[in-house]
Amino acid sequence: MTDKIITLPRSDMPTKWYNIVPDFPVPMKPVLSPQTLKPATADDFAPIFPMSIIEQEMSDQSYITIPDEVMEAYSIYRPTPLVRATRLEKFLGTPAHIYYKNESVSPAGSHKPNTAIPQAFYNKKAGMKRMSTETGAGQWGSALSFAGSLFGIDVTVYMVRISFDQKPYRKSMMQTWGGTVYPSPSDRTEIGRAILKDNPNTSGTLGMAISEAVFDAATHDDTNYAIGSVLNHTCMHQTIVGQEAELQMKKAGEYPDVIIGCVGGGSNFAGLSYPFMRDKIKGNKNPRVVAVEPFSCPTFTKGVYNYDYGDTAMVAPIVFMHTLGHTFEPPGIHAGGLRYHGAAPTMSLLCDQKLMDAVAVHQNACFEAATIFARTEGIIPAPETSHAIRVAIDEALKAKKENKKAVILFNFSGHGHFDMVAYDKYFAGQLEDYEYPSEKIKEALSHLPKVEAM
Amino acid sequence: MTDKIITLPRSDMPTKWYNIVPDFPVPMKPVLSPQTLKPATADDFAPIFPMSIIEQEMSDQSYITIPDEVMEAYSIYRPTPLVRATRLEKFLGTPAHIYYKNESVSPAGSHKPNTAIPQAFYNKKAGMKRMSTETGAGQWGSALSFAGSLFGIDVTVYMVRISFDQKPYRKSMMQTWGGTVYPSPSDRTEIGRAILKDNPNTSGTLGMAISEAVFDAATHDDTNYAIGSVLNHTCMHQTIVGQEAELQMKKAGEYPDVIIGCVGGGSNFAGLSYPFMRDKIKGNKNPRVVAVEPFSCPTFTKGVYNYDYGDTAMVAPIVFMHTLGHTFEPPGIHAGGLRYHGAAPTMSLLCDQKLMDAVAVHQNACFEAATIFARTEGIIPAPETSHAIRVAIDEALKAKKENKKAVILFNFSGHGHFDMVAYDKYFAGQLEDYEYPSEKIKEALSHLPKVEAM
Repeated sequence: MTDKIITLPRSDMPTKWYNIVPDFPVPMKPVLSPQTLKPATADDFAPIFPMSIIEQEMSDQSYITIPDEVMEAYSIYRPTPLVRATRLEKFLGTPAHIYYKNESVSPAGSHKPNTAIPQAFYNKKAGMKRMSTETGAGQWGSALSFAGSLFGIDVTVYMVRISFDQKPYRKSMMQTWGGTVYPSPSDRTEIGRAILKDNPNTSGTLGMAISEAVFDAATHDDTNYAIGSVLNHTCMHQTIVGQEAELQMKKAGEYPDVIIGCVGGGSNFAGLSYPFMRDKIKGNKNPRVVAVEPFSCPTFTKGVYNYDYGDTAMVAPIVFMHTLGHTFEPPGIHAGGLRYHGAAPTMSLLCDQKLMDAVAVHQNACFEAATIFARTEGIIPAPETSHAIRVAIDEALKAKKENKKAVILFNFSGHGHFDMVAYDKYFAGQLEDYEYPSEKIKEALSHLPKVEAM
Repeated sequence: MTDKIITLPRSDMPTKWYNIVPDFPVPMKPVLSPQTLKPATADDFAPIFPMSIIEQEMSDQSYITIPDEVMEAYSIYRPTPLVRATRLEKFLGTPAHIYYKNESVSPAGSHKPNTAIPQAFYNKKAGMKRMSTETGAGQWGSALSFAGSLFGIDVTVYMVRISFDQKPYRKSMMQTWGGTVYPSPSDRTEIGRAILKDNPNTSGTLGMAISEAVFDAATHDDTNYAIGSVLNHTCMHQTIVGQEAELQMKKAGEYPDVIIGCVGGGSNFAGLSYPFMRDKIKGNKNPRVVAVEPFSCPTFTKGVYNYDYGDTAMVAPIVFMHTLGHTFEPPGIHAGGLRYHGAAPTMSLLCDQKLMDAVAVHQNACFEAATIFARTEGIIPAPETSHAIRVAIDEALKAKKENKKAVILFNFSGHGHFDMVAYDKYFAGQLEDYEYPSEKIKEALSHLPKVEAM
């Protein structure tokens, strides 16, 4: 019997993060300061990030050594298993080989600690007492609270109100690790109060929560901001996932034909796909790389590639990315982690360069896929992860129809233990499939910052 | 750096279950039929168990080969990691080495699938359409629903009402795997209706839920009963845990001085400890083996060693075990899986023979230990598991005081993702430490069956 679970010994765990930026076929456009609308300098970031993170954000080095303390904390749950989805293959009757990298094994239940741990480490080292952050579904806030507990640094989490209400136990989880959680928009920040004044019934967005967290950090000397996705350093920290997967796929004697991941800000999929993308850019291999997003927040499939603010209140840096506009307010779907108006600038560039594809899917189809997965492979997926599973199943069924072997690899980014209310609604037939109206997207896109592309 | 996580390749996974019964220094007392009060025959069990399970229950073989189909299903999550709790050791400043076997990595979140999987397999093979069972905290019902989905057999779960109310998402989890869940006592069985008539406000007990599940199976030809703990076959199925741990401890170059586990019915701790107990019985090694129970349900520390019914309504077999009496109704503590009036007959014999120790602990001290564990090792423990952690920490602090190295091994039987309400109450200072009054225990013990010990 072949191994279903392909482990990696601790001694083979990659010791460097991979930075894709120097390998890009075209240069990235600079990040702009929200105050000056000019290219941001390290000083512009200094009020909210430690210098080591700023250096990583702007780095032109291909590899950055992972500090010993981070390696030690990673080893709580890493290397994570690569799993061959043999039972799912059998259920589908497909000749495809389906592999998933199981990032749900971290204590926080997702890939998010891969960047939370180094961010907590660097901030502690820089003498910070506290980190502020936002969270959508709660995966990121959990991960940062967990990481904060490991390095002895306080964590304040602004949680998108709809998730705060839908998932009370995410809050309990963060508290167990010592984190402090507020629903966003909150009355704790000037920005939150202003948003609530205009729109007291808002269910919140990641954009609003980011505004509050950045403002909190910018106005407190002992506090920095930590972001869970989008920016270069978060994507880079996640490349430990793909580098491990490369070694594990080699152990399995295969190379993926298709690589799939769900995309909100983009970090989980960046983490899995960028090490393989390196082969693709260099022309050594040609895997198809597919980003999956919800129809209700279709950043890649309906957005524009342009400069935009990272947050609603325009306090976060302006980046060149695929975006639906920073005022875009997606419906309250259960994949809270995919409700972001923009996407990682690195991933946006790859999509623009046709090195990566993007597809949109509906949430009922995703929960159908998640249920099939749970009843074959066992693990109950997070709603976000179900987007990747949906497309992995579709690819496997295509291979069946064409009767050809295909090697499919996807990122099992998180489990759904704190999302059971969404499953209840799915089984009760109460989930809606939203498609965001074009005119509303057009309206949101009319608020992009007026800067020339540089 | 030494490996924190000690993995085991799939090829080294044990292929047989270990049956401790033939190694006992004294013979076990026979199980009695609740109808005749005479030693039960295979025929007495036939209405509720398949013959293969009955044979295992009564087996005098030391090893039983695990079927290929079960090995394949085990490999979804097995072998599980053995983890050195290096960060906890550092926090405590102890010279002790603390290891835990991480059974929380199964899709159901605990060790319970180790016996759920073979029971689902054997029942499917015997032509059953459905299995009925009880669940306390929800871990066992989840595991059986998961196992049922793997082999295509329906699962009906009677869930102790207090847990059903406290943990609605356990129900959702079981439903995601296709299980059907009712709060117990329910109005679906004659027995449930009778209990509700006498005591309409009861929060339920495992003893009552067992009665309902056994009755359901006994009155439906296409349905068998599955039990999550106590009986010999469940403890035997769990020995895959301890056999893996033996190999992993050997890889780490150590042998445990103390082996610790929480005990409700006893199966998780039997699974970890019996393979080591084999060494102890044979006199090759002399580890201290410590069963941990809650003060609120002190089966070993305050109960008697006697024949008793396994359930409240006296429909389950009568076994010789440590018991508080089958009418004992423990307070509604959060470690629902430890609220059983009896304990595994095999474990009871080991305690009676002084081969195993038992200690009782209070729930606030356990949640304190669980929080320390979450903030050092990362994983949030189930309330049941926190009992083992409390004593592991106490042993490590004793080693610190005595300034001597001790190798401590405990079973991390499950995670607490569905128990966050208990953590909320702990942090809010709302958890009570119950000690069950002696006169109430005396009263419950007055209802033991009137049979001579044979």
